[in-house]
Amino acid sequence: MLEEKRVEVNSLGEFGLIEKLTSNFKSIHPNTIKAVGDDAAVIDRGSYYELVSTDFLVEGIHFDLSYTPLKHLGYKVVVVNVSDIAAMNGIPKQITVSVALSNRFSIQAIEEVYEGIRMACEQYGVDLIGGDTTSSQSGLIISVTVLGEVAKDKVAYRNGAQVGDVIAVTGDLGAAYIGLQLLEREKEVYISNPEMQPEIPEDQEYAVKRILKPEARMDIIHEFNALDFKPSAMMDISDGLASELFHISTQSGVGVEVWDENIFIENTVYEQALEFGIDPLTCALNGGEDYELLFTCSEKEFKKLKNVRDIISIGKITEKGHKLVTKKGNVIDLEAQGWVSF
Amino acid sequence: MLEEKRVEVNSLGEFGLIEKLTSNFKSIHPNTIKAVGDDAAVIDRGSYYELVSTDFLVEGIHFDLSYTPLKHLGYKVVVVNVSDIAAMNGIPKQITVSVALSNRFSIQAIEEVYEGIRMACEQYGVDLIGGDTTSSQSGLIISVTVLGEVAKDKVAYRNGAQVGDVIAVTGDLGAAYIGLQLLEREKEVYISNPEMQPEIPEDQEYAVKRILKPEARMDIIHEFNALDFKPSAMMDISDGLASELFHISTQSGVGVEVWDENIFIENTVYEQALEFGIDPLTCALNGGEDYELLFTCSEKEFKKLKNVRDIISIGKITEKGHKLVTKKGNVIDLEAQGWVSF
Repeated sequence: MLEEKRVEVNSLGEFGLIEKLTSNFKSIHPNTIKAVGDDAAVIDRGSYYELVSTDFLVEGIHFDLSYTPLKHLGYKVVVVNVSDIAAMNGIPKQITVSVALSNRFSIQAIEEVYEGIRMACEQYGVDLIGGDTTSSQSGLIISVTVLGEVAKDKVAYRNGAQVGDVIAVTGDLGAAYIGLQLLEREKEVYISNPEMQPEIPEDQEYAVKRILKPEARMDIIHEFNALDFKPSAMMDISDGLASELFHISTQSGVGVEVWDENIFIENTVYEQALEFGIDPLTCALNGGEDYELLFTCSEKEFKKLKNVRDIISIGKITEKGHKLVTKKGNVIDLEAQGWVSF
Repeated sequence: MLEEKRVEVNSLGEFGLIEKLTSNFKSIHPNTIKAVGDDAAVIDRGSYYELVSTDFLVEGIHFDLSYTPLKHLGYKVVVVNVSDIAAMNGIPKQITVSVALSNRFSIQAIEEVYEGIRMACEQYGVDLIGGDTTSSQSGLIISVTVLGEVAKDKVAYRNGAQVGDVIAVTGDLGAAYIGLQLLEREKEVYISNPEMQPEIPEDQEYAVKRILKPEARMDIIHEFNALDFKPSAMMDISDGLASELFHISTQSGVGVEVWDENIFIENTVYEQALEFGIDPLTCALNGGEDYELLFTCSEKEFKKLKNVRDIISIGKITEKGHKLVTKKGNVIDLEAQGWVSF
C-alpha cells in the first residue's frame, strides 16, 4: 500500500485551502443564495437579503500587541467585518464577538478590547448580540461574525464585472503597509534598546493610523444608496489591490487593465516608501489592509458618482489578461500577491 | 494616584465576565429582539425570528487531540452549536466555521475536521455558508456561528419559567463526564507506558461516545413542533444540570425543587462512576457536555408529551430557593458548579 504524502497547509494558500475544504458541501436550503466564495454569504429574508461574514484575528499572525493598543484592536476587529458587508453594498446591523485569551491578560486589558468594540459598534450602528469568552493556551484570539442587510436589487458580488466596465477604487492605497513597516522598525529599536521609546515621525501618523485604526467605507455605501448607484462587482481591499483584481477577474471571467498613474498614494506614504527602499506602487498593489473598496460599473453608471469624493477610476475591464499600464505607456503583467497568512 | 488593582480574568468566571464586558452595549436596531444572555440571540425577520449563536472550541481547553479523532471534533463543533438553536426551540439552517491551526497540521488532518463538519451538516440539515482559515501560533482553534429559525410564538427563552411548572429533561445525564474520565485515564496509561495502547472497556463505549460524538436533541424539537408544544423556558445542558437550573431560576425569578431519584443515569455510567469513586449524582448534576435539553412547562402542557420518548419530569418550579430532594426525603441545597473554563 502506498502511503499518502503529507500535504503542507501553506502549499495551497488561504483561498486554495478554503476551496478544497468546502468543495464537498452542498447547500439544501432555498434561502441560502450565496454560500462560500464572496465577501459575505447571502441569505434570502423575504423582502431583502441578509449578509453574513466572519473573520478570525489571531495574535502573532494578524496583530502584534507590542505596538497595537488593545482599544484600537477591538475597534479594528469590528471594522474589518463591517468592511466585508460594505463590500457587498450592504449595511451592517448586528455582530457577535468571541474572545479567547490566556491568563496573562487582566480584566482591565480585556475591557480595553471591548471598549474599542463598543466605540466601533457606535460608529457603525451595529448591535452586539452575542459571543463567547474562553481561555486560550497562548495569546489572544478574536472571532467576529457580522450580519448585514441589502436590498435584493443592490447586492454586489465579485462575479458581475462586464467587459468595458470602469474599474474604480476609493481613497488611497499602501498606507497601512507603510504604517506596519514603521511600527515594526520602532519595535526593533525598542527590542535592541528597551530604554529607547518607540517614536513615529509626526508626518507618518496617517500611515500608522491606517494600520492601527482603519475605517470601513460605509460613507461610500450610503452615497451609493442615495444616488441609486449599483456596482457591477465589488470587494473590499483587505489583501491588496492586485490580489482583489484577480478575484474579480477570475470570478467574472474577464480581464483587467489598470493604469498605474491613477492609483492614489498619499504623499507622506510615497516618500516613506522610498525612504524604506520599497517601490510605492508595490505597496499600493500588494500591501493590503487598506479596507478601501474596489468596484466596477458601466461608464454610464459611473457618471452618477461624479460628485462623490474619494472615488478614482483606475482602469477598465477587458476580455482577458491582467495588464498594468505604466505612466510611460509600457504594459506589464500584473501579479497577484495577496498577503499569505500561511 | 492610586494604582488600579489588576483583576484576574478567572476571578469572575465566564458568565460574570460576559456580563461585565457587555453591560455598556446598547442595541439600536428594532429587529434586535434579544442580544446577549440566552442560548442564542434573536432577530426579527418579519414572519419569524432568526436565531444566532456562536461558540469557540480551543485545543487544550475544550478538547485534547491525544484522544479526540479529528473527524469527531468536526462533528462535535457543529453539534454544540445546533444544540444552542434547539435550546431556543428553533431549527438550525446555516453555519459558518472558522479554523485557526498551527503548521503541525497537514492538509489531510484539516480535511478530517471538515469531513466531520460535513457529516454533521448533513445530519442536521445545515448549510455551510462561510468561514475563515488562518494560522495560529499554537494548536487548533475552531469558531462556529450558527443561524436558525423559529416561529415567533414558539421561541423559548430562559426567563419564562412560572411557579408550579414542571421541570423536565431529555435523556440521561453524566455520561459525557464519565467518558472524559475514561479517556483521561487511558491517556495517563499511555503516557507512562507508550507501548500500552489505550483501551476503553466495551461496556463503556456509550460514555465515550457521549463525550466524543454527542448529538443535539433536534428529534425532541421536531416532536415539540409536531405536538404544538411550547416550553415556558428552555436551555441545553452544556455546563451541567445544576448550573443550568440556576440560570433558569435566576433569569425567571423563581426557585427550583429537583428530585434526585428522577434524574436518569445510564447503568454502565452509574457503575463506572462508583468504580472511579465519584458520586454518580454529582456527575449528572455537574458533569456537563451532555447536550440534553432542560425545559419547564405547565402541568397541562406537559400532558401533550406523554407519548414522547426520553422525556422525564425531574422537579417543579417553586417561588424561591434551589432544593434537591433525595430518595429518603431529605432536602438539601443545590449548588451550581458549571464547568469553569477559566
